[in-house]
Order: sequence, then structure tokens, then C-alpha cells
Amino acid sequence: MDCDILVIGAGILGLSSAYHLKMRNPGKRVVVIERLSGAGQGNSAKSAGGLRNVFTSETNFLLADSGIDFYSHLERDAGFDLKLHRNGYLWLLSESQYSSLKKLLDKMKNRGIETRLFEEEELKRMIPDLVLSFPSGDEEAIMMGLEPIHVGVFGPKCGGLDADSLVKSYESMFLGMGGEIFYNTEAERLVLEPERRLDITGEPFVWQKSLVNGARTNLGEIKADTTIVTAGIWSEKLLNPIGFDVVNKPKKRQVFVFKDLKLQNLQELKGLNESEALPLTLLPKAGIYLKSEASEGSIWLGCSDHLGREFEVEDDPQPEREFYARNIYDVLVKYFPCFKDLREVNMWAGHYAINTVDGIPIVEPAPGMIYAGATSGSGLMKGDALGRIVTSNYMGEDEAELYGGRKFKVSNIGISNRKVAREGFVI
Amino acid sequence: MDCDILVIGAGILGLSSAYHLKMRNPGKRVVVIERLSGAGQGNSAKSAGGLRNVFTSETNFLLADSGIDFYSHLERDAGFDLKLHRNGYLWLLSESQYSSLKKLLDKMKNRGIETRLFEEEELKRMIPDLVLSFPSGDEEAIMMGLEPIHVGVFGPKCGGLDADSLVKSYESMFLGMGGEIFYNTEAERLVLEPERRLDITGEPFVWQKSLVNGARTNLGEIKADTTIVTAGIWSEKLLNPIGFDVVNKPKKRQVFVFKDLKLQNLQELKGLNESEALPLTLLPKAGIYLKSEASEGSIWLGCSDHLGREFEVEDDPQPEREFYARNIYDVLVKYFPCFKDLREVNMWAGHYAINTVDGIPIVEPAPGMIYAGATSGSGLMKGDALGRIVTSNYMGEDEAELYGGRKFKVSNIGISNRKVAREGFVI
Repeated sequence: MDCDILVIGAGILGLSSAYHLKMRNPGKRVVVIERLSGAGQGNSAKSAGGLRNVFTSETNFLLADSGIDFYSHLERDAGFDLKLHRNGYLWLLSESQYSSLKKLLDKMKNRGIETRLFEEEELKRMIPDLVLSFPSGDEEAIMMGLEPIHVGVFGPKCGGLDADSLVKSYESMFLGMGGEIFYNTEAERLVLEPERRLDITGEPFVWQKSLVNGARTNLGEIKADTTIVTAGIWSEKLLNPIGFDVVNKPKKRQVFVFKDLKLQNLQELKGLNESEALPLTLLPKAGIYLKSEASEGSIWLGCSDHLGREFEVEDDPQPEREFYARNIYDVLVKYFPCFKDLREVNMWAGHYAINTVDGIPIVEPAPGMIYAGATSGSGLMKGDALGRIVTSNYMGEDEAELYGGRKFKVSNIGISNRKVAREGFVI
Repeated sequence: MDCDILVIGAGILGLSSAYHLKMRNPGKRVVVIERLSGAGQGNSAKSAGGLRNVFTSETNFLLADSGIDFYSHLERDAGFDLKLHRNGYLWLLSESQYSSLKKLLDKMKNRGIETRLFEEEELKRMIPDLVLSFPSGDEEAIMMGLEPIHVGVFGPKCGGLDADSLVKSYESMFLGMGGEIFYNTEAERLVLEPERRLDITGEPFVWQKSLVNGARTNLGEIKADTTIVTAGIWSEKLLNPIGFDVVNKPKKRQVFVFKDLKLQNLQELKGLNESEALPLTLLPKAGIYLKSEASEGSIWLGCSDHLGREFEVEDDPQPEREFYARNIYDVLVKYFPCFKDLREVNMWAGHYAINTVDGIPIVEPAPGMIYAGATSGSGLMKGDALGRIVTSNYMGEDEAELYGGRKFKVSNIGISNRKVAREGFVI
């Protein structure tokens, strides 16, 4: 099989890239291959589905903010049901955290990122189940180093959507334009060939310009003028053998789901958002966050741990009940006692594809190919912008036009001429 | 066994770090462990031993230039025989290569990096065996895309030394101060512990600050207040399991050695350097370089190939005669016909530890440890400066003082606040 553009991986990045590539190059044959049996069944499906535009890095802001706008457009104008909501993000910060972030918050405001500040009293009123401070003799709180909550920083343009619905929307738009997707088709190896074949055994030699020319798959070789590698944490397996570094490390992440009458109050909050649901709320300790999933009346909970969780690709990562019980629970019930003795009704695990250098995604070309990845836990919200940047990269444009018309310099998130600010508002 | 500082790896980086740490902290117990049976037997031993101060990146220049000065000092003032020489580096450039590098060369000159420019006629006179251009009907040259040599850029402060002698010098200086080295001692795993132990099973929890506290080895656990991870391409194996990314990819590199009467002329060149020996000379094609190894009357030859050589750690990488015969030979004999039909008398292979992001080394701390690596093919020349930077990092100093008194901001080659310019003069 031959095609013009071969996209490897039908996760959010692959499908958004395929869609934008096909949209702007309708005459080209664009083929997506995916080792699993459906769209977004790798790590896209494992996402907590959060959307936020509150970032200190201009790059992250542009990528995510335009994505939120595009997804709203898909729902509003194109009739897709993405289960989009704007419940907001709420960072609960201790006094010391707030003072170290204050300058960044001002900077973000100047850039046009809306945030609201809630004082202790407001937080108490709006989230009656939240405990903001602990009695001075609370030994557990002291032992765990828990600080009282001083303020809440609220991002009203933040929220979430259903990852599966988003991925399926791209799939259907891409197929509708005549794009092709082959599921159960695994790229085993990229094909590296000389730019000008001489028909001498052993090509390509080091003195030849070599390029990627498609992939060997379980269905045979698929030749392509351009290969888009958007295989998430599995990209490394394809790109290592041709000496290309993905700068992308897998890091296991888990989501635990709770549904209980005791949590009912968290779905009936006044004053924070229209849905009266708990925003995606970040505790001041241990990277723990929780959010209301109103469509199923549940609370989702996750935890971004750092030093101590190894980098390793697992094809079927399993959630660890013990991780919740031993690591999250004790902190959680201090701030939200309503979780006391509750047990998860569902849980799963996936991987972030982390750029450990600066935490910002990468779109980098090499001869015959473009790699996009290292989404570092925000691939869903940045997926649309990244698909457009991949497309501009393919078309030789210096600047991509993001949804809404803002321009983005393509080389800024490449490797060779990278120009990004490290993110200061990490989750 | 307990110590204050545990250094993992007795290559150039480990021994330089150990030496400078012990020198500035004579009261501390500094222990080096090494899985092999002697110093520098990993990739330090595989080095071609080149030294250059000609870099476009200010960072690289400072690291290497001060290293050359220190190694000269070791020979001149401390009586170590490092087989140091200043035969120079000679970049043979085509017209297009020269014009794209011209600005960078001017910039380097302004920074005080001495280079000399040799025109075609001078090159012909000084290196009679070098072919600078090919007949217009030379089909092989056309097929291989070989361009005529337009100029030679010569770096007179560049040269080389014997890698083994350098490593052994650091070893003896370190041991002389009371440092300890345990060979045949392999670090199997870093020990991660909570900063404040609570004696609850399962520590460290995510809400605890955790830190590295030594390593588990085949000789048992070695506890250390600070662990220095300088294990080259093997650092990843130690640091992945605690979630720390080395940003360092292994890339196989080979050296082929030639000794033949036909190469005698290359040891008797007039006008380039005092030894009358071939400088480390880089061909304009395919990353091929060769240098005279005067002490053994041989020519060493290597090739830095890029796309097409996979990233993979091999514990005992083997040189490939075929790689020379099929990839280097055809280009080499065009520029240096004296290599015609010669066969190597020796060859070996090792790995570069490449920072694919910017090509510049990394020294990054994490709780209880400091990682130094990603030397990207220039660990020998930068080893001394990196050892000093590791030491300043350990001592909490913002700036390291390199040999000769120049200051170097420690965080500039960290990950979190990295501030480096990508190198434009790559080999």
C-alpha cells in the first residue's frame, strides 16, 4: 500500500493531525494506522478530560486556549456532543504557595488569562465540605506537613470534556473527508531509505541523505512520502531505531472514581459555576486533584506524583488500589472529610508522555517524517493546536494559524530552534 | 557501609567529580564505586581523546577551554604524563559550508577563540596527500555528493591527550587525598527514602519529601548523604526507577586505527603544528574525521553518523569492519587516496551519551543526589569543568570557579533553569 501521508497512532494527536492534514490537503491520500481496535484507546482514553487555559507559559496558553475555543465551536456549530463544560479549575493554595505564584498570576492576567481569587471565607461558603485549616494539635496534619488553605485561584474558562467523544469527533470528521483508518494495524518499524536510491546493497550509507519512507506493519509495508509519528509513549520504540530522540518519558498516572451519597454536596455548590459542580480542584499537597463528573454523578480523583514513580512503558498499566489507600487517602480526608471510608467504584491507569526538560509538547520534523508528542499530560486540550502545527510543518509554513486566528511559530516547539518558557503552573 | 558522598561510576566524570569534591571537602568520606575492574574502562576508554576549544556555544567553550588549561597544568606543574599535544583541529569545509559558518566564526573570534583560515593553496602545500577537488567527470564523487574543499579552519589550541592517562591521573590524585574507590562494585538501584522517616510501612508516601540516600550494590547497601550519579549511558538504568530523566541517549561510535608506510606523509606535515602530525581533520562529508596518533605512529579514524544509528545501550559494543568498508572508505579515499586498500590494524566501539535537545552536558540536582552526564561526545575535554560544577552544586554555590578563574553559573547547565545556546559546530 502507498499513500501520501501515513499517520501512526489514532489517539488525539494522530487524529487531530490527520484531520487537519486532510482538510488542507484534500487531494492527498492520508492513512492512519492504529495497533488497537478503535480510536483513542491508548492513553487518550485514560485522560481525566480536563481543559485549562491557565498556564504561565505563553506557549501552553496559546495551545490550550485555542483548543478550548475549537472544541466549543465543534459543539456549538458542528453538532458534536463532547460533554464540554466550564466548571473551572480551582487551585487551593497555602500562603507560601500563593506568595511564590503571585507574580506569575499577575503576568498571566496581563496576557488576558482570566482568573478569580477566592479568600478563605468565600471558599468556606462555596464549598462547605472543604476543611481549610487544622487544629494546632492535629498530629496527622503536622506529620504530613499539611498547610492551611489561604486562597483559591479559580480559572473560569477551564473545565473538561469527554475524551472519548472528542477523539471520535475527529475520527468522524476525518473519515467524512475521505481519510482512511486501519485499526489492528501495528507499525513495527519505520522504513529508512536513501533520498536518491543507487541500488547498491547496504543503502542508506552515511554519506547519503536518508529519510523515513513509511512503516513496516503487520499488514506489510506502507510507503508514504511523509510519516507522522504520533504514537504517544510508544513513539520511542519506533524512533529509537533510526536515532531520533522523542524527548518523552512515560509516567504512570491513575484515576479513581467515587460515587456516594456523602459526596452529594460536591455536586451542589453555589457560586462557582453554572453546573454547581466541584471544579477540577487541586489540593495544596502531593499533587492531588479531584473533579466532579456530573454526567455520571461521580467524583474523579488523581495524583501527580513526581520523584518516586519510575519511567517505564507498560502496555496495560493497572491502577493500584494501594496507591490510593496509602498515598492519597490520608491527605484527602483531611481537606475533604466526606471521603472518609469511601471506596472507589472504578479506577484505571495510563501514562503521561512527559517532556522532562521543559514540560511543553514537541513537534519536530526529520527527513520524511514529523514527530509530535511529549504532551506532558495535556494532550487532549492541546491536541487541536498540535494537529494544526503538524500540518503547517508538513506544508512548509513558518507559522501555523490556530483556531481563532492566532499565529504560532512552528519552530518554537521544535527541538532544533526551540523557544519556550518552562511552565510554572504544573499539575 | 556509610559515607558522606557516594560517586557512582569511575569514568572521567565520576573521577573528576570525586577529586574536586574531596579536594574541597577533605573531611568528608568520599567513596567511588565502579562496576568494572578499573578506572575509565567504560566509554572514557573508547574516546578518541580529542580536545578542542572551538565551539560556537559559550557554555561549551568555557567548559572545554578551561579543561585544556587544567590538563596542561597537570602535565606542566604536577608531573602527570597525559600525552597532551596541540596538533590542532582542522575543519575542511566546502564553499557552502564555509559561507553558512562564517558568521559563527567571526563571533567566536570576538569571544577570543583563536582560529586560522587556510586557503586551498595553503592546504595543498601543507597536506600534499589531500585531494581538494575532483575532476568534473568523476561519477563516484557526484554519486556521493562530494563537494570540493574550499577552506580549512584551524584551531591551534585544539589537540588531544591519552584518555586512559587522564583518568588515571584523577584516580591517583583522588586516592592520594584519602578518597576511596571500590572496583567490581555495581550500583543496582538507588535507595529512595523519606526525608523524615516515620517508620510506617510503605514509605516514602507521595505526601512525603523523598530523597536519594545511597545505593544498593552487589556488596550491600551503601548509605550516603549525597549520591553523585556519573554512570554515563548507564545512568538511565539507575535514574529511571526513581522518575528522574537523564536526557541522555546512547549512540554507538567507532574508532578505526591504521598504520602503514603509505600514511607516513601524514606524520610529516610542514607548517600546521610543532609535531608535524596530521591534526584532527574533519572531512566536509559524512562526519568523517581522522587524526594522527603520533605516539604509536598511527592514524585514528571515526565517523559521526546521525539519522540511522539507533539509540541503544550495549554493554560490550563491537566495532563493525563493514561500517568502515561500506560507509567511510569510499568517501575517505576520495579525499585521502593514501588510504586505498588499507585495512585497519585495530578498532573499537563505544557510546556517546548524547543530549539530543541541545548537545550540551547536564548537571542537575535532585533531593539527595546530583546527576552529571549527557556529555555528548566531549566528556573528556569538559570533564574537569563538570567535576568543579558538580562540586559547587554540592556546596550550594551559585557559581563554580573553573580552572583559570573564570566563573560559571551552575544552574545554566541544570535542567530546571537551563540557559545554554545550542552548539553550531558539531562533530
